[in-house]
Amino acid sequence: MKAEIICVGTELLLGDIINTNATWLANQLKDLGIDLYYISTVGDNRRRMEEVFKTAYQRSDLVIITGGLGPTEDDLTREVVSAVTGRRLRFYQELADQINEKFKKFKRKMTPNNLRQAYLPEGAEVIKNRVGTAPGLYLKVNNTIFVALPGVPREMKINFTEEVLPRLKKELPEKGIILSRLLRICGIGESAMEEKVKDIIQNQSNPTIAPLAGNSEVYLKVTAKAASKKEAEALLKDTVDQLYQRLGMYIYGENDETLELVVGKILKKHGLKLAIAESCTGGLIGHRITNIPGSSDYFERGFVTYSNEAKIEELGVPEDVIVRYGAVSPETAKAMAEGVLENSRADIAVAVTGIAGPGGGTPEKPVGLVYCAIADKSGRVDLYDFHFWGEREWIKYSTSQYTLYHLWKYLINKFSVEPKNTQ
Amino acid sequence: MKAEIICVGTELLLGDIINTNATWLANQLKDLGIDLYYISTVGDNRRRMEEVFKTAYQRSDLVIITGGLGPTEDDLTREVVSAVTGRRLRFYQELADQINEKFKKFKRKMTPNNLRQAYLPEGAEVIKNRVGTAPGLYLKVNNTIFVALPGVPREMKINFTEEVLPRLKKELPEKGIILSRLLRICGIGESAMEEKVKDIIQNQSNPTIAPLAGNSEVYLKVTAKAASKKEAEALLKDTVDQLYQRLGMYIYGENDETLELVVGKILKKHGLKLAIAESCTGGLIGHRITNIPGSSDYFERGFVTYSNEAKIEELGVPEDVIVRYGAVSPETAKAMAEGVLENSRADIAVAVTGIAGPGGGTPEKPVGLVYCAIADKSGRVDLYDFHFWGEREWIKYSTSQYTLYHLWKYLINKFSVEPKNTQ
Repeated sequence: MKAEIICVGTELLLGDIINTNATWLANQLKDLGIDLYYISTVGDNRRRMEEVFKTAYQRSDLVIITGGLGPTEDDLTREVVSAVTGRRLRFYQELADQINEKFKKFKRKMTPNNLRQAYLPEGAEVIKNRVGTAPGLYLKVNNTIFVALPGVPREMKINFTEEVLPRLKKELPEKGIILSRLLRICGIGESAMEEKVKDIIQNQSNPTIAPLAGNSEVYLKVTAKAASKKEAEALLKDTVDQLYQRLGMYIYGENDETLELVVGKILKKHGLKLAIAESCTGGLIGHRITNIPGSSDYFERGFVTYSNEAKIEELGVPEDVIVRYGAVSPETAKAMAEGVLENSRADIAVAVTGIAGPGGGTPEKPVGLVYCAIADKSGRVDLYDFHFWGEREWIKYSTSQYTLYHLWKYLINKFSVEPKNTQ
Repeated sequence: MKAEIICVGTELLLGDIINTNATWLANQLKDLGIDLYYISTVGDNRRRMEEVFKTAYQRSDLVIITGGLGPTEDDLTREVVSAVTGRRLRFYQELADQINEKFKKFKRKMTPNNLRQAYLPEGAEVIKNRVGTAPGLYLKVNNTIFVALPGVPREMKINFTEEVLPRLKKELPEKGIILSRLLRICGIGESAMEEKVKDIIQNQSNPTIAPLAGNSEVYLKVTAKAASKKEAEALLKDTVDQLYQRLGMYIYGENDETLELVVGKILKKHGLKLAIAESCTGGLIGHRITNIPGSSDYFERGFVTYSNEAKIEELGVPEDVIVRYGAVSPETAKAMAEGVLENSRADIAVAVTGIAGPGGGTPEKPVGLVYCAIADKSGRVDLYDFHFWGEREWIKYSTSQYTLYHLWKYLINKFSVEPKNTQ
């Protein structure tokens, strides 16, 4: 199956947006074993869209379009697919009902242009959009499949995964199976990590092992091809086992398991409550922890003690400690974590204090210096210092990442859990 | 001048690399006033490259190609430009000498395939590459200009800026100027917003007005073309003034001015301290506020009162209020905001409580229902209710967005500031 991606949107031609949709879709097609031959970007212009869609119709078996599905006059994807395939636009009552309902439910007034979204080319299946308003379409015509998805990356990804992927899998002949496992690695840099597993990577062709860079973490993507799922899984297991032996506690999770997820799982399992005190991260750690559904089971409260007064008043950090050692010091981090335990109902407390920049650094305490403390009811307090480099948001994110990583390690050690997660 | 970008490289079709070259070049062309109509990506495949290059030759005045200029058999850009334009490849002695010299300088052995880089289509000017090995080409043939640049982003950018930009400027008839202003709009949906300004958008060709969707906000991008900067600015001002008249307080900022930034600016200017209490957002609002450098001047502290106990103990929310009205209720939001004022040193307090889902919803209080309170020392408390739909992270983000928007409106009204920000 020869595939082609068309991204519609003048904003892409003006350089306002980096086209991450195409990259994401390219990866999806690769995982399906579908060959992608072209990616095209075209503006919201009827004539030029027709030209590009027509070419795609002639040369490709699968045409995935993103963008141009909104309610405005500029949104022409429905019309152009219709014109190019000769399938007239038809009014879908179910779509009109859904659109009406969404507006009613949220008590907003529906403007008439929204009903443009209720028209699709004759014969098209509706791609439901449970996370937005613009429905997509799936149309098979003369052995070419047209798929149109919203341009908003989040909606596009969810709709593709839930609605398009199952349909495409049915179209593919039964052949080889490609399986991947993504190992998520923190606490070590990309080149140091690669050095540890270089020989395994080099002596390996199936599975392949690809190192990938993340945000304050790195990944190893292990991909196996085989005739059956069982065989592919066995191939993966052998290689992944070797990588776990080399990298041990640097691997904190696999696939979609973020740090906030793996931390939350252990807390939940052991019925523990967590509370946190954040200074330089300003709430980011709490935000990440509460991104996990059900986190209210273990996340008890957070203190964003940005000012010194807040550290003293909320957490009982002795003023003397701040004066003598500074707000950014191991002593203050320790007092913050202990203060969290005293001023909450949590079993485990985490505290961070650091200099996110760009101002506030000194030669002794530069921008990017962060202290982290993890304390529990036994009186144990673990202290860490981080030294990041970069911009404010990067330092904040890296702090959240390393803090969660050390919290995960603390929990793993506390419960003597085997970190190895062989599926 | 109609331009087109072609990115060559199978790695782009495999999704291994995000195509930042195209975005960067798109911005360069915009600044030059050159209209970019298409971006195409194609793999290192001779037949498909020929097809894409040929189409571009037929429809565009300027074709900028990145990638495919290296020394390997896979690097086909030179050959394909030659085939499509009918200009035979010619040996450039100067290029061969340069390549030889570079290898000598770095004491590496030159393999014969490197000499492939010494061939260019007849009539092509050499694009020097002072930061890498692969030279590019600049070829004018039948009123179409072909530019080929290396795919490595750093080399591509330096070569474009130093070698291509001066040549293109000479080709342009008059130095037209393009200027844009991005209006940032919150508190209204995309279609309702467009309805309000539809006639202005439709009756307008210079400046153009493009509606763009953001995350829980929308944009209007106003772009003017003129002979001089002054003239472009005047054109922009006229149109932008009209849009402000229609949209008023929905426009909270322009260009890079985020909500956290405009809120912070007013707080700082008036020497006010802000403290917040977050329930469903888990720290996200504090995180966003502290993304702004210098936010410690006005952000005093935050309470992430995730559990009911935290709401009662940290903020003094009466247990009775939670029991009678629920943790997600206007009454609780109000008590939280008042509690923030009493338990901090802030002048203004913001509190949110809601149901981020996926669990925890009821028919009366569905997932996505959020209450927000803004309180100040005068005893005034403003209450808002939001009704979002979507996933957990989306509801959290939308809550942070609408909370910051209402805080901005509160501050604008408090200080009778004119929101209109005409540059």
